[in-house]
Amino acid sequence: MLYHVRMDVHLPPDMDADEKAALLEREKAYSQQLQREGKWPHIWRIAGEYANFSILDVDSHDEVHQLLSGLPLFGYMDITVTPLAKHPSDIKD
Amino acid sequence: MLYHVRMDVHLPPDMDADEKAALLEREKAYSQQLQREGKWPHIWRIAGEYANFSILDVDSHDEVHQLLSGLPLFGYMDITVTPLAKHPSDIKD
Amino acid sequence: MLYHVRMDVHLPPDMDADEKAALLEREKAYSQQLQREGKWPHIWRIAGEYANFSILDVDSHDEVHQLLSGLPLFGYMDITVTPLAKHPSDIKD
Amino acid sequence: MLYHVRMDVHLPPDMDADEKAALLEREKAYSQQLQREGKWPHIWRIAGEYANFSILDVDSHDEVHQLLSGLPLFGYMDITVTPLAKHPSDIKD
Amino acid sequence: MLYHVRMDVHLPPDMDADEKAALLEREKAYSQQLQREGKWPHIWRIAGEYANFSILDVDSHDEVHQLLSGLPLFGYMDITVTPLAKHPSDIKD
Amino acid sequence: MLYHVRMDVHLPPDMDADEKAALLEREKAYSQQLQREGKWPHIWRIAGEYANFSILDVDSHDEVHQLLSGLPLFGYMDITVTPLAKHPSDIKD
Amino acid sequence: MLYHVRMDVHLPPDMDADEKAALLEREKAYSQQLQREGKWPHIWRIAGEYANFSILDVDSHDEVHQLLSGLPLFGYMDITVTPLAKHPSDIKD
Amino acid sequence: MLYHVRMDVHLPPDMDADEKAALLEREKAYSQQLQREGKWPHIWRIAGEYANFSILDVDSHDEVHQLLSGLPLFGYMDITVTPLAKHPSDIKD
Amino acid sequence: MLYHVRMDVHLPPDMDADEKAALLEREKAYSQQLQREGKWPHIWRIAGEYANFSILDVDSHDEVHQLLSGLPLFGYMDITVTPLAKHPSDIKD
Amino acid sequence: MLYHVRMDVHLPPDMDADEKAALLEREKAYSQQLQREGKWPHIWRIAGEYANFSILDVDSHDEVHQLLSGLPLFGYMDITVTPLAKHPSDIKD
Repeated sequence: MLYHVRMDVHLPPDMDADEKAALLEREKAYSQQLQREGKWPHIWRIAGEYANFSILDVDSHDEVHQLLSGLPLFGYMDITVTPLAKHPSDIKD
Repeated sequence: MLYHVRMDVHLPPDMDADEKAALLEREKAYSQQLQREGKWPHIWRIAGEYANFSILDVDSHDEVHQLLSGLPLFGYMDITVTPLAKHPSDIKD
Repeated sequence: MLYHVRMDVHLPPDMDADEKAALLEREKAYSQQLQREGKWPHIWRIAGEYANFSILDVDSHDEVHQLLSGLPLFGYMDITVTPLAKHPSDIKD
Repeated sequence: MLYHVRMDVHLPPDMDADEKAALLEREKAYSQQLQREGKWPHIWRIAGEYANFSILDVDSHDEVHQLLSGLPLFGYMDITVTPLAKHPSDIKD
Repeated sequence: MLYHVRMDVHLPPDMDADEKAALLEREKAYSQQLQREGKWPHIWRIAGEYANFSILDVDSHDEVHQLLSGLPLFGYMDITVTPLAKHPSDIKD
Repeated sequence: MLYHVRMDVHLPPDMDADEKAALLEREKAYSQQLQREGKWPHIWRIAGEYANFSILDVDSHDEVHQLLSGLPLFGYMDITVTPLAKHPSDIKD
Repeated sequence: MLYHVRMDVHLPPDMDADEKAALLEREKAYSQQLQREGKWPHIWRIAGEYANFSILDVDSHDEVHQLLSGLPLFGYMDITVTPLAKHPSDIKD
Repeated sequence: MLYHVRMDVHLPPDMDADEKAALLEREKAYSQQLQREGKWPHIWRIAGEYANFSILDVDSHDEVHQLLSGLPLFGYMDITVTPLAKHPSDIKD
Repeated sequence: MLYHVRMDVHLPPDMDADEKAALLEREKAYSQQLQREGKWPHIWRIAGEYANFSILDVDSHDEVHQLLSGLPLFGYMDITVTPLAKHPSDIKD
Repeated sequence: MLYHVRMDVHLPPDMDADEKAALLEREKAYSQQLQREGKWPHIWRIAGEYANFSILDVDSHDEVHQLLSGLPLFGYMDITVTPLAKHPSDIKD
């Protein structure tokens, strides 16, 4: 099932540089693993903002929460999750 | 280039049924033509709302405006357009 | 799966009384049928407002959209849908 | 009487880990005790957010305030309380 | 139990004058009856706005909904209801 | 003259306990003195929130500002003040 | 006592021209009479909007409500009233 | 002096086609005349919305109000005006 | 030209007392000097809030920005500036 | 292609003066270089606020994100980006 997610990241500007780099590295690895597993089919940068729109494809609300709350950046994020249904005009099966 | 679009439709509840059906038919045909042309790669129904998230893939802001303002339902919609950049974690080329 | 739904109803104050009564009758029958089927485990009136909080229990986003967009009052409603996961403190299995 | 409550938790990301674990432990015990007493019939995690929707069943506004302001996490929360009445379509007695 | 209520009235400016006068007359009588019964201890006009703050004193959420949804002006109102608890500084018993 | 006031208190969760207790003690004494003087006829706790609705009865805007800005908690509060007029339905003189 | 007032006017675009002209004439006369009486010391047009900021100088909340609710345009307005106190930096007596 | 203006147009979807065409024709002529006079140096379409951002260059607030309130579409618009100062980084004189 | 300004001050509650006193002293002197020069004809305290409405009378947007950004408290303020035009009902020349 | 950008800067009031001066120096140089390259045709100070409206002229969403996220002040900013299309009334080619 598809979930539309908006993630806004708020890192303190005076965060220790090494700590920040390590955190972002873990975040990238975490996300790319899920992308390879097909659970995170789309991730787009909102141009000009430290935020992204993503589409997650998982089997339940529990799994979407587990996935998102497991993000290394979770504690620095505002997140909104919107369930997506099939649109009647969608030509894809 | 990718644009994230949210469209909320507000049709008057007491709209003439035939007029409404014809309007929606034209809207569907318009959208599906653009989908076939690859300009409208994604359209998802926001579950529970008369609204959708879409991803449009066109070459310029002028084209995205032309496409959206040409929607038969345009006059009944609230629309927000957000430009999308490539996310550094995106594993797709 | 559980979905939290808020529904705000906006009926025109000068709506024809008979039409309104018939519409509400259909709405009640529609809802109660789904409640009997176990798909609508909770519906509460927000005190003082023509609105309700509901918990729906269905198998997919498509089904929750189908259920909500099929409401006789759908065209007169503002609806927000929030997916619910199991809370770590919840003592229920 | 039933109260619908939304609780959003904002813990500082750099909170001491042990302190945080102890606080959450107390929060869980506090909530589960009230659940066993039947005063907290429902608690759901809002998928993707550090927030929950809950239904509390207590006898007065004073009691609901006492219950909520006694939460170990109270000082880190934004809370909204909405009184719930019986919905005319509710098939439950 | 005390409920704080804000009521904003939106009457169509071109409403028939007699109809409006009759409606307001019924509203006044309805409110004053409840005030005499002690269920509506306070009603204040928000200066400059067609709105009021009220304090209702009733025994349950069902009763507060019944009271408010029975207002002749209910269909023309935006209403927000907030449950009130005893304040620790309140010198009144 | 009556003023409706909403006060939301935001104390830092990690405030020194003694300092907090002393501050709240001063706040309570300050409020109760004004209540005894009849300038603060009502104070209600908004159930579930560190906030209150109050009705102040003073002779001028200057006095209401002086009263509120003199609150020991003033620096930790968001405050909104709304002037109240007599409601045409109010049965009290 | 001084009250800061914002008035936003929403006239239906298809209002009868003569009716509109007469209404605005009455509004202007009403306002200018109060200005001459010193009760309406300031009225400024918010540039680009059908709205104004005004300062009213009257003796009570009741009077400010009476003045504003008596405006011929009252039914077409959104109004917000804010009580003003003397600023400690104000060099005027 | 420069003013940043956002104009959102809300035309009733069922407006008479001829009337609408004539109105838009007058609007276009009005705007283009001011552009030729150098008072309206920039007008951009907000992609996907019936709205524009404009930069007006006039000598006073009175003139900017006169210009905007004279727009044929003024009665169908939400307008926000923001005064612009020279930015310290601006390399233009 | 007249500008309507709203200034909301947010000073950290735990600011050093002497530093705060000195800052406010500079702010008062700065404002009163401009008042004496006729550039700040009105400053009113919003009753109950650490905020003010002001009317500034200066010759350009650059000057209003210079004036406001020069306020000692500027870094602790949220400021909104609205250009004011002459109201057609204003009886003052 | 043109992008409308609003940038609101939030620098901590107690930031080290030298650090702040150096940061602003880098920001100015960064912006002026892009202005000289024709990628940043307009930058205006929003009068009274530590914010600006800018028009960027770049070839893609990726480039606009790269440009904005490269701003030395990026971590202290709230940014909104709006794609601009050609307005039908625009007399410029």
